[in-house]
Amino acid sequence: MKIESQAGILKIYVGESDKIHGRPLFEEIVFEARKTGMAGTTVFKGIMSFGASHSVHTMKIFALSSDMPVAIEIVDSVEKLTNFAVRINEMMDESQKGGLITLQKLDVLRYEVGQKYRK
Amino acid sequence: MKIESQAGILKIYVGESDKIHGRPLFEEIVFEARKTGMAGTTVFKGIMSFGASHSVHTMKIFALSSDMPVAIEIVDSVEKLTNFAVRINEMMDESQKGGLITLQKLDVLRYEVGQKYRK
Amino acid sequence: MKIESQAGILKIYVGESDKIHGRPLFEEIVFEARKTGMAGTTVFKGIMSFGASHSVHTMKIFALSSDMPVAIEIVDSVEKLTNFAVRINEMMDESQKGGLITLQKLDVLRYEVGQKYRK
Ligand SMILES: Nc1ncnc2c1ncn2[C@@H]1O[C@H](COP(=O)(O)OP(=O)(O)O)[C@@H](O)[C@H]1O
Ligand SMILES: Nc1ncnc2c1ncn2[C@@H]1O[C@H](COP(=O)(O)OP(=O)(O)O)[C@@H](O)[C@H]1O
Ligand SMILES: Nc1ncnc2c1ncn2[C@@H]1O[C@H](COP(=O)(O)OP(=O)(O)O)[C@@H](O)[C@H]1O
Repeated sequence: MKIESQAGILKIYVGESDKIHGRPLFEEIVFEARKTGMAGTTVFKGIMSFGASHSVHTMKIFALSSDMPVAIEIVDSVEKLTNFAVRINEMMDESQKGGLITLQKLDVLRYEVGQKYRK
Repeated sequence: MKIESQAGILKIYVGESDKIHGRPLFEEIVFEARKTGMAGTTVFKGIMSFGASHSVHTMKIFALSSDMPVAIEIVDSVEKLTNFAVRINEMMDESQKGGLITLQKLDVLRYEVGQKYRK
Repeated sequence: MKIESQAGILKIYVGESDKIHGRPLFEEIVFEARKTGMAGTTVFKGIMSFGASHSVHTMKIFALSSDMPVAIEIVDSVEKLTNFAVRINEMMDESQKGGLITLQKLDVLRYEVGQKYRK
């Protein structure tokens, strides 16, 4: 991450069962982020949601419990995130799924490589 | 979501066992968001927390493991979110629970309906 | 939380198995936040990630499934959070782990003590 440029967080919300070319979309997004050289990525799974379809996804009904939401967070420079979002939009269109992508500015107070990996 | 107006994310933190009229508060908030016409909602469950009471909630002690925190995220226009927060404050007062509500500005880079639901 | 000063959210991302003096780092950070008088803390566990090492952590491979990411969220005044982040940076250096700390401004719309705890 270029410390001098404005940093931000990209959040990508998709369904955990959404597929692209038969593979889980959220995993392919993480692999694409790593391939593109993004600084990092953290994925969280939710317990309840609704999106543009307004159908509520919940764990409490067995038939719906396999389509929980996932949120993918990527922190990097706003410039890199904005470019990467173009690629993610393409992937989400290819998978014919909806979803949400948001971008917020923030300040990075620490971004370090752990001892184990230092040269 | 009106693309022309400033977008934001509302985050509502409550305990998973908090009740309103005998029902789980976080679920009632999600249903209220859908009824009010909010663009969407995603709920995450946490593994450890403390709030205004300063009692630590953790999964590692059986007696406390049923009161994990939940965070409800709603992305929409700042105007709709601000109005909706007034309603959520009322619900949280009715349930006699504390909790936290925050609002952050952000930019929406994608908000699409999945193919399955398109007309 | 001083309502008059600018509020923010500090997010600290570490691995769930990261240790400091033999104890889980993320738990020690929560205890430190409470000891320091932060307004509250909520911890979320993720399902997939990569950081500065670019090794992907995922639940789908048994050998890697014990090192899931955790994100610690603390909402308070920007001033208190900035000072607290100095302490967290020290703890993360002591544990010889990398990780990420970010700070975003936001507005607090509610921060209340539940009925159970009111004097
Ligand atoms: N405005 C929003 N606020 C919060 N989360 C959202 C919003 N819109 C969508 N999401 C999240 O993205 C997921 C996917 O959304 P979407 O593709 O519209 O499908 P669906 O309507 O089937 O849930 C939702 O289930 C929800 O978790
Ligand atoms: N300042 C804060 N920062 C982060 N999370 C918070 C904060 N305040 C409250 N929370 C979250 O909201 C939950 C409910 O808070 P609260 O009603 O004050 O009750 P409690 O003290 O019983 O946890 C907390 O458990 C925590 O998950
Ligand atoms: N730029 C980033 N964006 C989102 N999450 C990140 C970022 N950098 C680090 N993280 C999170 O912090 C965790 C710890 O990061 P790090 O210490 O660099 O170790 P590792 O490379 O072993 O994952 C990561 O696994 C990931 O969950």
